[in-house]
Amino acid sequence: MSRTDAESYYAGLGDHHVQPLWRQLGTLLPREPTSAAVPHVWRYSVVRELLLRAGEIVSAEEAERRVLMLMNPGLAPLAAAATNLYAGLQLVLPGEVAPAHRHAASALRFVVEGEGAYTAVDGERTVMSIGDLVLTPSWAWHDHGNESDAPMIWLDGLDLPLINAMEANFFGGASERSQQQTRPADSTTRLWAHSRLNPTWVSWDQPYSPLVSYPWSVTAGVLKAALEEQTGSPYDGVRFEYVNPVTGGPVMPMLACFVQALAPGQGTEAHRHTSSAVYHVVSGNGRSIVDGVTIDWGPRDTFAIPGWAVHEHVNDAGDEPAILFSFSDEPVLRGLGYLREAPAERQR
Amino acid sequence: MSRTDAESYYAGLGDHHVQPLWRQLGTLLPREPTSAAVPHVWRYSVVRELLLRAGEIVSAEEAERRVLMLMNPGLAPLAAAATNLYAGLQLVLPGEVAPAHRHAASALRFVVEGEGAYTAVDGERTVMSIGDLVLTPSWAWHDHGNESDAPMIWLDGLDLPLINAMEANFFGGASERSQQQTRPADSTTRLWAHSRLNPTWVSWDQPYSPLVSYPWSVTAGVLKAALEEQTGSPYDGVRFEYVNPVTGGPVMPMLACFVQALAPGQGTEAHRHTSSAVYHVVSGNGRSIVDGVTIDWGPRDTFAIPGWAVHEHVNDAGDEPAILFSFSDEPVLRGLGYLREAPAERQR
Amino acid sequence: MSRTDAESYYAGLGDHHVQPLWRQLGTLLPREPTSAAVPHVWRYSVVRELLLRAGEIVSAEEAERRVLMLMNPGLAPLAAAATNLYAGLQLVLPGEVAPAHRHAASALRFVVEGEGAYTAVDGERTVMSIGDLVLTPSWAWHDHGNESDAPMIWLDGLDLPLINAMEANFFGGASERSQQQTRPADSTTRLWAHSRLNPTWVSWDQPYSPLVSYPWSVTAGVLKAALEEQTGSPYDGVRFEYVNPVTGGPVMPMLACFVQALAPGQGTEAHRHTSSAVYHVVSGNGRSIVDGVTIDWGPRDTFAIPGWAVHEHVNDAGDEPAILFSFSDEPVLRGLGYLREAPAERQR
Amino acid sequence: MSRTDAESYYAGLGDHHVQPLWRQLGTLLPREPTSAAVPHVWRYSVVRELLLRAGEIVSAEEAERRVLMLMNPGLAPLAAAATNLYAGLQLVLPGEVAPAHRHAASALRFVVEGEGAYTAVDGERTVMSIGDLVLTPSWAWHDHGNESDAPMIWLDGLDLPLINAMEANFFGGASERSQQQTRPADSTTRLWAHSRLNPTWVSWDQPYSPLVSYPWSVTAGVLKAALEEQTGSPYDGVRFEYVNPVTGGPVMPMLACFVQALAPGQGTEAHRHTSSAVYHVVSGNGRSIVDGVTIDWGPRDTFAIPGWAVHEHVNDAGDEPAILFSFSDEPVLRGLGYLREAPAERQR
Repeated sequence: MSRTDAESYYAGLGDHHVQPLWRQLGTLLPREPTSAAVPHVWRYSVVRELLLRAGEIVSAEEAERRVLMLMNPGLAPLAAAATNLYAGLQLVLPGEVAPAHRHAASALRFVVEGEGAYTAVDGERTVMSIGDLVLTPSWAWHDHGNESDAPMIWLDGLDLPLINAMEANFFGGASERSQQQTRPADSTTRLWAHSRLNPTWVSWDQPYSPLVSYPWSVTAGVLKAALEEQTGSPYDGVRFEYVNPVTGGPVMPMLACFVQALAPGQGTEAHRHTSSAVYHVVSGNGRSIVDGVTIDWGPRDTFAIPGWAVHEHVNDAGDEPAILFSFSDEPVLRGLGYLREAPAERQR
Repeated sequence: MSRTDAESYYAGLGDHHVQPLWRQLGTLLPREPTSAAVPHVWRYSVVRELLLRAGEIVSAEEAERRVLMLMNPGLAPLAAAATNLYAGLQLVLPGEVAPAHRHAASALRFVVEGEGAYTAVDGERTVMSIGDLVLTPSWAWHDHGNESDAPMIWLDGLDLPLINAMEANFFGGASERSQQQTRPADSTTRLWAHSRLNPTWVSWDQPYSPLVSYPWSVTAGVLKAALEEQTGSPYDGVRFEYVNPVTGGPVMPMLACFVQALAPGQGTEAHRHTSSAVYHVVSGNGRSIVDGVTIDWGPRDTFAIPGWAVHEHVNDAGDEPAILFSFSDEPVLRGLGYLREAPAERQR
Repeated sequence: MSRTDAESYYAGLGDHHVQPLWRQLGTLLPREPTSAAVPHVWRYSVVRELLLRAGEIVSAEEAERRVLMLMNPGLAPLAAAATNLYAGLQLVLPGEVAPAHRHAASALRFVVEGEGAYTAVDGERTVMSIGDLVLTPSWAWHDHGNESDAPMIWLDGLDLPLINAMEANFFGGASERSQQQTRPADSTTRLWAHSRLNPTWVSWDQPYSPLVSYPWSVTAGVLKAALEEQTGSPYDGVRFEYVNPVTGGPVMPMLACFVQALAPGQGTEAHRHTSSAVYHVVSGNGRSIVDGVTIDWGPRDTFAIPGWAVHEHVNDAGDEPAILFSFSDEPVLRGLGYLREAPAERQR
Repeated sequence: MSRTDAESYYAGLGDHHVQPLWRQLGTLLPREPTSAAVPHVWRYSVVRELLLRAGEIVSAEEAERRVLMLMNPGLAPLAAAATNLYAGLQLVLPGEVAPAHRHAASALRFVVEGEGAYTAVDGERTVMSIGDLVLTPSWAWHDHGNESDAPMIWLDGLDLPLINAMEANFFGGASERSQQQTRPADSTTRLWAHSRLNPTWVSWDQPYSPLVSYPWSVTAGVLKAALEEQTGSPYDGVRFEYVNPVTGGPVMPMLACFVQALAPGQGTEAHRHTSSAVYHVVSGNGRSIVDGVTIDWGPRDTFAIPGWAVHEHVNDAGDEPAILFSFSDEPVLRGLGYLREAPAERQR
């Protein structure tokens, strides 16, 4: 068959809604993943200023949620900080309310600045402090309000890229702006957060954790104690996963949350895994080397590490630990048998 | 703040790799899923002819896999027949061999035409007949060859859109074209396929089914017996899932496979679910009404039903059952808590 | 303290309902299990004759269930054939009915002689043939009747010793002698027994298998095919577990059922495990050596192998396979982490 | 058949190791469980004195474990406080050591008196204080020693009746009296006990909890907080289960541990369940009414509630909560599908 014939053959396939696999085998079946996402850091000082300006430009009512989404330069215009992960920084000004709604997408909040705003989830309010992890799981009603006298900023983490790729997202708005409080504020946190004792009179059949908030006061104590006597993982130092007390697994089926501490001066070995992650710096100064790119980070910065990227972390400060919160799509990949991990050559 | 200021504000955000959520809230958090995929049918007569012409244009060596991918008109150029599902029709001519490889993506084959070609998986060959379901699971070595004297055509189903969206795919080529046969041909099928007895001397720790092939001879018998005394589901008639004997669950963690029979003249009720599916007509003539669009189908046609599309099936023949094979992303959605189903108004 | 003082101390403890652990440490914490049960065989010819005489002595009405319980000589008067396992041979004469009842204890029937009697379970009758395995699971209504013109004898297996040791048994009698038939006879068997296809319109939430009967016709075919090309386990030959199609696990949470074939002349290696088992000889002649004791067995004999007893099997016939059905408490021990297995020296 | 014939028939059955089911159907298949165990309380003052006398009569070396076993009056001479549960009070005098051993049986310790003795489990010592729950799980090496200057007494709980009924117990003695310490004292407790954060660098594949000790300091805080705002279960008040952080399930597969608080003056509703339990009074004075029998209890008393016994609890003190620790066979019964619970008429 002549070359012209072949070309006319290929040109005509589209009309029949078929295409030859053999012309894109390498794209569809790559040797290994090469993420379209890139390593990237969002400086808190920059985003904070933009966020405060947004406070002038749009009211909370207009915005419903006043959030600047972190756009991975390799993925934009897709709203994603890393491959399967959405991240945003949300501002709620004093007196503002973000009205009640719910969605199939799973969401978490990690408090960055301010004190005293609340998130209400399924009838329970939690009063938010810096470092608290607050869950607003799939299809749970939630609303926010800031009754303090200072701006409140937190990091939002959602599984939007994946749930939207799967076309499985739903949204529901409530008739009331704020939910009725059916339980005392922070009661699930008091009940569950401080021990390994589970209340037997609570029958919990949701697939996510019953805790509304994992308070920083608890997290900080655990990290401090661990740093004193544990070396942790060579790749991640002393790193903990926030767990669902009912299953011992991730806080939500789609998203795992972690907090880790690097001792003063500690540098880790390099590795890679198919899961991707968004990191938020709670305290400390350091850097992460990701596929050869050095990301310097300081307090309140947020950065993304793409899936299968070789990475290692260094705490450059000689006198204080560096503390990193992160969230990841690890449970999705593990559940499907697609989580792989491999050690790599150190890049420094 | 003036409108100009706001516009300059928005215009400048991209430089900082952030974007306002409030300007695309409805897109990111839709009321309910609206699939980009459309209902579509690929006629076998059309694709078969294109496939046979491909047999003249490219050799198996050149093509490695001579497959025409079914491109959903709503998703192209993405290689997807439905949202999370890849489908293709593969031709192996007499004497041809498709060399051994493996990939993280999960694959299935459903035999459409021909008799006597083989697929080898992890050292075991299965000789393929029309209607057989053959699994080539994640990271399992596999190769194909046609030792018969007629063309062999089968339907390929893979989870490529989802695994590639998650950037978790890997590929490995073997040094040898065909695998060594380490077990007698079809021995796992003989061992597992005909009963509910599990061999206790086989310790199976893979996340997928130990069967290489679910033979049509078995499937046909089960369908025939069920049609005689069962009414099945109002939405799907007498519909069976092929299961992993070790777990009772789907044959592979990413893909569920089904076969269903509609009695002569039977029409189903309408429903919708977040999972999407690719159907292949084994025998019979009928139609499916999908979000108001009527898809007429006959033997060997393949069609796609997008996620959350309202659909119902009708067997128009008064004298023979219609038999449909299908595969779906149902286990992924179920595992993440994102599988929803709802009844709907009948569309006819 | 004088010896007399000590003795008076010990003598007085009983009044306070306490006893010294240190005087029976070895008994309570043995080096390894030494079963009170002994290896034992019940000859079918003997029990059958006793059973037929029972048919003259008591009517089915008087007996409710005309069963001779197999009493392990080491455990009597406890009604147990092996440590956690009850076994009995039941006779139903032509025209007799065993009225409907149910109990928390789990039960199985394995048909030994006769053709055409029925067991009804939860509204479905199964017509029994030799070699069929019939389940009457925990709290399922069941009744039996013999509409044939010959005596019907089957082996009953229950978890009575364990459930009664745990004091968790309940019993309920029905107001009617025979259950209403709510499904066609043997419909679950036709639906589930012949393949690895699960009906998707059946939502099954019981902890036991949905099959009422695993018919011998299926089992025999699987064994025959396996004997032709498989060597099976060195300890058990070609041995299959009957499984629950919904879970891939045991047919009932308390009892696992197996069938195995030893090739003509085959002798196995020796091993031991903490689970105990009751065996029933379907066909063939051979012997099992159990803790040094040789048990010769022939068709329809029943024998017990205590837990942790070293055992091996020999098929003495040079021309036909020996086929053994067995049931065991393996799932209980596995679930609690107490299942151990170890190879042992061959005893022949 | 004459009555004499029947009697001679029955008399002869024993020789053939069979017995008629129909003569003991009611015993083997009771309407509902009637526990052989009886409600019983062991006064701490009494057992403590006997234990101290034992300290004079036998040395720790002679006794290996100086334990007075609590013998349920309905079950003696079986070493059981309730149906499936062994309980004992153990004394370790200053300077004494209980040498390292391990057993398949699962064990727990609940500290009753003293401060500063240790239990070492798999290379880690925990220093014991009143109210601590210490696990010595199946097949884990453990030893005890008292380096304080006062007697140390704790409650032992084991699954001995059940594991020995199942004939699955094993025992191993170590060559050394005390284990090498491979981890800092109480390091697993510090790592796991105070939060819902799981260390990700610890890969834990045992079926039991990784915590050696659940310290009272944590438990007391949780109870106090819960009493302030929770009403708990109508049957059990504010009752928590100690859980395995890796699974969210019971601390060991065989034994569940609970702690509950009854508010001043609180009396519960009555119920019954097939699981049985041993209770230990941490503080407070009250009574439990069990199948009509009133058990008065005070600090450090231990009492047993048989399975399926109707029971309710009353805190008679108007000014302080009553706190009860308990352990139970609930996970065994639940796993087998034999856990039943039913409300009952109040008995006061």
